[in-house]
Amino acid sequence: MFETAELGRSVSKKAFEEAEATLRTDLLQAQREARAAGLPVVLVVSGVEGAGKGDLVRQLGKWLDSRGMQVQVFWDATDEEQQRPWWWRFWRALPPRGEIGVLFGSWYTEPIVEHAYNRIDVRRFEAAMHQVKAFERMLTVDGALFVKVWLHLGKSAQRERWQADEASGRPWKVSPIAEEYGEHYDAFLRASERAIRLTDTGLAPWHIVDAENSRFRDLTVGRTLLAAIRARLAEPAPASPAPPPSVELPGEPVTVLSRVDLDQQLSKTAYRRQLAHWQQQLNRLGWAAHRAQRSLVAVFEGWDAGGKGGAIRRLTEGLDPRLMQVISIAAPTDEEVAQHYLWRFWRHVPRDGRVTIYDRSWYGRVLVERVEGFATRAEWSRAYHEINAFEGQLMAHGTVVIKFWLHISPEEQLARFTEREKTPWKKHKITDEDWRNREQWPAYAQAVNDMVQHTSTSEAPWVLVPGNDKRFARVMVVRTLCERLAEALGEELEPVPEPPQRRQ
Amino acid sequence: MFETAELGRSVSKKAFEEAEATLRTDLLQAQREARAAGLPVVLVVSGVEGAGKGDLVRQLGKWLDSRGMQVQVFWDATDEEQQRPWWWRFWRALPPRGEIGVLFGSWYTEPIVEHAYNRIDVRRFEAAMHQVKAFERMLTVDGALFVKVWLHLGKSAQRERWQADEASGRPWKVSPIAEEYGEHYDAFLRASERAIRLTDTGLAPWHIVDAENSRFRDLTVGRTLLAAIRARLAEPAPASPAPPPSVELPGEPVTVLSRVDLDQQLSKTAYRRQLAHWQQQLNRLGWAAHRAQRSLVAVFEGWDAGGKGGAIRRLTEGLDPRLMQVISIAAPTDEEVAQHYLWRFWRHVPRDGRVTIYDRSWYGRVLVERVEGFATRAEWSRAYHEINAFEGQLMAHGTVVIKFWLHISPEEQLARFTEREKTPWKKHKITDEDWRNREQWPAYAQAVNDMVQHTSTSEAPWVLVPGNDKRFARVMVVRTLCERLAEALGEELEPVPEPPQRRQ
Repeated sequence: MFETAELGRSVSKKAFEEAEATLRTDLLQAQREARAAGLPVVLVVSGVEGAGKGDLVRQLGKWLDSRGMQVQVFWDATDEEQQRPWWWRFWRALPPRGEIGVLFGSWYTEPIVEHAYNRIDVRRFEAAMHQVKAFERMLTVDGALFVKVWLHLGKSAQRERWQADEASGRPWKVSPIAEEYGEHYDAFLRASERAIRLTDTGLAPWHIVDAENSRFRDLTVGRTLLAAIRARLAEPAPASPAPPPSVELPGEPVTVLSRVDLDQQLSKTAYRRQLAHWQQQLNRLGWAAHRAQRSLVAVFEGWDAGGKGGAIRRLTEGLDPRLMQVISIAAPTDEEVAQHYLWRFWRHVPRDGRVTIYDRSWYGRVLVERVEGFATRAEWSRAYHEINAFEGQLMAHGTVVIKFWLHISPEEQLARFTEREKTPWKKHKITDEDWRNREQWPAYAQAVNDMVQHTSTSEAPWVLVPGNDKRFARVMVVRTLCERLAEALGEELEPVPEPPQRRQ
Repeated sequence: MFETAELGRSVSKKAFEEAEATLRTDLLQAQREARAAGLPVVLVVSGVEGAGKGDLVRQLGKWLDSRGMQVQVFWDATDEEQQRPWWWRFWRALPPRGEIGVLFGSWYTEPIVEHAYNRIDVRRFEAAMHQVKAFERMLTVDGALFVKVWLHLGKSAQRERWQADEASGRPWKVSPIAEEYGEHYDAFLRASERAIRLTDTGLAPWHIVDAENSRFRDLTVGRTLLAAIRARLAEPAPASPAPPPSVELPGEPVTVLSRVDLDQQLSKTAYRRQLAHWQQQLNRLGWAAHRAQRSLVAVFEGWDAGGKGGAIRRLTEGLDPRLMQVISIAAPTDEEVAQHYLWRFWRHVPRDGRVTIYDRSWYGRVLVERVEGFATRAEWSRAYHEINAFEGQLMAHGTVVIKFWLHISPEEQLARFTEREKTPWKKHKITDEDWRNREQWPAYAQAVNDMVQHTSTSEAPWVLVPGNDKRFARVMVVRTLCERLAEALGEELEPVPEPPQRRQ
């Protein structure tokens, strides 16, 4: 694989200067066009230590317009990063649409190093690379351009480079980290080769660059970047194929929602007793999770007026406010619009020992965006997989994920809408949009059905909450969350105490 | 001070429900109007432990529209927070214009606790409170509304509250932290009283609330918030007075820039030798700063075509890319526009052991915004003080701050503009705006003069770099930075080696 990058090609100073003049003009032009087209470009700079990744990055800094180009270095993770799912640090660093992100270190670095040092075996390494591939594919079909360059140096060339740096009086170029890796050259190269092989896809191919001659290296990468941007601007991002349309099933339309027993109720007395009990358990479990450094993500979706707000408030009454945050999803800011739709949710992923409650969530993609046509069929149908991958990454980190759908009947919704319109402090909750959504009831029910089918797993289940009786729904939400937490933490749950006996 | 909050006032359940109906309707209306007016509201919730800060926050969550309201809890700081100047965590949590930020814990918490426990003395405590006052004033004159409530409980009421919570079967309401503080009630109250006294200003007054009866407490805070929003919407934010206009000085106009010796030059040989030397020193010092966990902020301002980019590149050639980031200031995003102008710079403040290089900076406020009239006279003239306070907070944390002005003559600028227009990859750097700015040369020179007068301190000096000779300027920038760093770190600097002697 690396043989083609050990051919000793080089460029003379004069040839470099001539080529550079054209290249930098073209690169600037391409950068301007990428900005105008809203194309996010992710340049992944990887390679052998000593191959000059840092020098290359500086060269690019000279060629490109620094406004609209950001260098991101992944090196020593902060605790905010370590205390969140592994991918959080990378989402955080993605360039917005129209900008170029140069990644010095990336999602490849840690797996390759860990594998080279034999701290993760082939199976885990391959699993990591499959995740990487999925991540790059997801962003690519969303419109991002990945340019991945691997700077190669043969083993002896690497040694010579360091000797030359020392001799030339630039020993400071050999960073403290580099030398250590050098000793493991062969292991590192094997792991790298494996990484490249597993992730060299048509959508996000690798470019292996002979880095022995720095002028050849820089020109090659510059031209690679230029060609990739030009090609993408000339031809739109590869579309992901939409799945075949759903077939019409025989018989009456039935969804998972039609199986929810909406008649379940709770008396006022039982409600008070049970709610207090479960809130108390929740408070205890919240602190237990904090001690155990486990995080929790709770998602709330449901019909308009389904009782999401009330249910969330019953949770926040139990949880210590120091341990949680509630994220109400409203219109995205422009920094959010300039990213993949999952970005704005990744932003708020809790760190260890904390809880994030999402009042509406990434499921908007397969609910409102699907029904209202804000997302194309290809977009919302691939979202199931993207969402499962996202939640899988949370769970791989140890985060507990639970999802509630607050279900009510159309009749109950009508009654609540009417009541809202009559109540001064509830009026703002009811808009024309709610009435319009109501007309789409069957389409939403179908979307919920498909969502449950694709994304309800035993590890991250959808809990369909019968919401016609608010008391029943609220207790169910708090209790279910307690059960999930207790299970994840290996904690015991106390049963609801018996009601006090009436005197005879 | 707290006597007025121990009068045992209470509200019956019935009276509460009646009052609540009106209040929540009015609050929602006020919130909508605040959003429309772009008014950021900061509600600081402080008070005695056990007074029900958490319950109050939940009550507000019930009354207000959760979209546009965010609860921020300051409790255990992450290392990303600890490794940055103290104020960074608060800037990060400020609500954007039009939204309500409820702060549970704030810039008051830590100083009060530290002072109550006698870990900081009166003098340091007062200094902290003066900073707080300045911070609140700065944001207020920028348009923010601060509503600061102090929930009070007498000593015996505090004890009773806990006993009642335990008896009612809600012992989980007494958080692990609360009990510890209770033992230090008197010391805590003394420190709190001092904090309130020092920061109870006309712009951001305190409201001491009797918290013994939770209904009284919640209604009082709700009404206080409502009244504050209404009053602000009725009357604009208090303007900060503009200083008297500058007087015309006798004689020829002279600025600090006219004293810069632009004739200084460096030969190509000397340049190469010196640059390599200082870059090497810089690399070593960068790692030394990392080991010492000291951070560095370097600011670059200067005339268009003054050579900022080239000088910055000479720094980045020396510094390890793992340790630094370059922030190029372009048009702000809407998340940035929705905040005080310093917010977008606070965002990028380096953590310990790192370097942030700002290519243009917060000084835009007193340069381009002043000259072009984007900021009012009152705005840019108070910015000197705001900037000094900002940099003071960086330095108090141990951050090294250095500021470079790249100075050239108008003739040199013209030559460079002309050259840029002729060079394909430099063309994009020259716009009509540059030509327009050029016509404002004397106004900019005056602005630079005033900026230096107000913000160049021995701790955070302005370095006026003679830039007509690029070689001289670049070496001076790298060398000066090395000298500052070496001084701050107590490191030795190696002298530039003698040039090799020619053979006779």
